Amino acid sequence: MITSEIIAVGSELLTPEKTDTNSLWLTEKLNEIGIEVMLKTIVGDDEPRLLETIKDALKRSDVVITTGGLGPTEDDLTRQVSAKAVGRELVFHKDLEDDMRERFRRMGREMPEINRRQAYIIEGADALPNANGSAPGLIFEENGKFLIVLPGPPRELKPMFTDLVLPRLKNLAGDFVVKRRIIGVSGMGESAIDELVAPIYTEYKDVRTSVLFNKTQVEIHLYLKAENGDDAEAVLEEMTARMAEALGIAVFTTNGETMEEVVGQMLLERGQTVSTAESCTGGLVGRRFTEVAGSSAYYMEGAITYSNEAKMRTLGVSADTLDAHGAVSSQTAEEMAAGIRERAGTNYGISTTGIAGPDGGSDEKPVGTVYIGYADANGTRSIRLNLPGDRYLVRWRASQAALDYLRRQMLKEGGRDKV
Amino acid sequence: MITSEIIAVGSELLTPEKTDTNSLWLTEKLNEIGIEVMLKTIVGDDEPRLLETIKDALKRSDVVITTGGLGPTEDDLTRQVSAKAVGRELVFHKDLEDDMRERFRRMGREMPEINRRQAYIIEGADALPNANGSAPGLIFEENGKFLIVLPGPPRELKPMFTDLVLPRLKNLAGDFVVKRRIIGVSGMGESAIDELVAPIYTEYKDVRTSVLFNKTQVEIHLYLKAENGDDAEAVLEEMTARMAEALGIAVFTTNGETMEEVVGQMLLERGQTVSTAESCTGGLVGRRFTEVAGSSAYYMEGAITYSNEAKMRTLGVSADTLDAHGAVSSQTAEEMAAGIRERAGTNYGISTTGIAGPDGGSDEKPVGTVYIGYADANGTRSIRLNLPGDRYLVRWRASQAALDYLRRQMLKEGGRDKV
Repeated sequence: MITSEIIAVGSELLTPEKTDTNSLWLTEKLNEIGIEVMLKTIVGDDEPRLLETIKDALKRSDVVITTGGLGPTEDDLTRQVSAKAVGRELVFHKDLEDDMRERFRRMGREMPEINRRQAYIIEGADALPNANGSAPGLIFEENGKFLIVLPGPPRELKPMFTDLVLPRLKNLAGDFVVKRRIIGVSGMGESAIDELVAPIYTEYKDVRTSVLFNKTQVEIHLYLKAENGDDAEAVLEEMTARMAEALGIAVFTTNGETMEEVVGQMLLERGQTVSTAESCTGGLVGRRFTEVAGSSAYYMEGAITYSNEAKMRTLGVSADTLDAHGAVSSQTAEEMAAGIRERAGTNYGISTTGIAGPDGGSDEKPVGTVYIGYADANGTRSIRLNLPGDRYLVRWRASQAALDYLRRQMLKEGGRDKV
Repeated sequence: MITSEIIAVGSELLTPEKTDTNSLWLTEKLNEIGIEVMLKTIVGDDEPRLLETIKDALKRSDVVITTGGLGPTEDDLTRQVSAKAVGRELVFHKDLEDDMRERFRRMGREMPEINRRQAYIIEGADALPNANGSAPGLIFEENGKFLIVLPGPPRELKPMFTDLVLPRLKNLAGDFVVKRRIIGVSGMGESAIDELVAPIYTEYKDVRTSVLFNKTQVEIHLYLKAENGDDAEAVLEEMTARMAEALGIAVFTTNGETMEEVVGQMLLERGQTVSTAESCTGGLVGRRFTEVAGSSAYYMEGAITYSNEAKMRTLGVSADTLDAHGAVSSQTAEEMAAGIRERAGTNYGISTTGIAGPDGGSDEKPVGTVYIGYADANGTRSIRLNLPGDRYLVRWRASQAALDYLRRQMLKEGGRDKV
């Protein structure tokens, strides 16, 4: 196994506001070529700690990647400290300086003299020119180990890694392929899901399986490194099919799509349209439908009816219903869904009304009480949910439930009666 | 200076999908009591690397905090490895086991025997009972250094840290206070802002200043550790006032509020109301208004008019306008804003129409072209924007511009003509 470590450098990454995220992208790219990330370190602009970190990493791992700390100021230490870590000098590269001067000239500016520091590279290393910024990176190889020094800004790091580093590392781990799957599950808890799928994934020792809870849904991530791509694909296909069978209609995707993409695709395939009427979600359901490019083909209109007046005027909810049952009720939800469907002339109407909190709850209808309404040509339906979490989460979960309710009703209507 | 390190344990934190985020919260809490975080490590369920990491951290830092790896399964190594790192045995705590059994009983279940492992604690350490899960944490003190072992789930870690760890660490760094400010700036680029405020913040050497770009806005974070709270407050107050003066109306908050909170507060104070008409943002502006608890006092109604029919039917946009200028035009934006204002009977109407991409752009109106419309009792106005980024970012930036346009118009109307 080829092992790697990622070291993110910069004191701003040790504040409560900011942390390293480059390493997620780098991990994906490294995994794809069969290199495992064994450790990540975040260290400040702090010479002794950075030196110790790079030295320790080179002892433990085959590939060590640093990100950040290549700017032109005194704070930026990665260049000199990485040279010290491998016991080499920094040498000046005239061609890198020329490139930088040219780059500044194109922007109509003189290169500040301080930027000359960025043209120093570890002796014996290959410079990695930066197409999107002034700081070059470098790649240093010794005794089969790699030290790769990259700039911090993602728009500089990513193309540099893809174009100049990946080709050098690609064959390090030998011949193999990596296959992934993401199964999305909605309307079931994490532990209930794990209980159903654990007997399956424990049979597949080579597949790395993670069950992750992601705000509104549970995702099952499968990752398999193998020598033969077709075999690997067949293994994941079989595993996915078994899990989908075990979980039933709660599975909304087996290839990582979002709920709004799945529902949008279903509408598109059927040539059908939808409209939304939102109270407690305040536009979030519409926003999710329209997050998908091309959604104008099936998403026609939405009403955000926060006040009772708006519910009556725009959706035709009756005053009697609001008086007798309240705005947060199955009756109101159904009238809202029917109202927007009729107004917009769509196949489906979907609505939300509930108590997102933190105030407004009662014994009978505590915070988190949400009704989802549904209307189609045959009439209306609704469900009541008790959603946990704060205002933000209750609203997200309500939006997910609304999309999922439409999906389940469409499948039911389409002949599968598993809801 | 009291130094600390945070070690996040778990192989899932080394995948492309997930990384440590507990450390952001912990850093904030540690900074508040004057403890600096010097290094963060993310390590898998991997005995040799975890052991080396804990040992190295204890050599370098006064306070070492680990998170995660305390579950009941074989994979969970933090308990035994942390004991090995400090050269102690694990000892069984009957009272912890009793607590766990009781916890399971309350949930109507028998405790699985495997959970007994969680009742083992480093010899000489204090156990930290877990109010929200089965894994107890621990705090081990030797030669003035602390090893603190915490569970990974945030809902278990946070109360345990706040209730049981903070009181132990509080006076470690001596007498001092920490003050923070977050200044939010909208409608100006990061480098233009930095050019205006750098001459100010470089004068205040003791204040840690970070200028961060955050999706739709630039935030200036100020952080000051000092011996006297009033003095520190006065310094930040002066700095904030100077920056606000330099940046003018682009500053929308000097205490970390979101744009929707600021605009909502302005509406609330004036007893005024607003409604929204959205095309390209598809509900995002409404969603942001209603993200604020209590927004039903000023946010009345929104229309998501994706189709031209909806723009005409619901907002009264004229067919002539759509024919002559198109849906993405200042004329349409202004008619949308006027239409929703009239429909909802609010003081203000705000609208968005534009091309979020990836398709639909033209030479004249490329992707990122967005019009924001505004209507009040005196008539309508609009602005045209060319927003960079992908669909997701164009939509977020358009929603921010819509909220900010309303804010600027309200300030202008209120007598300050700085727009």
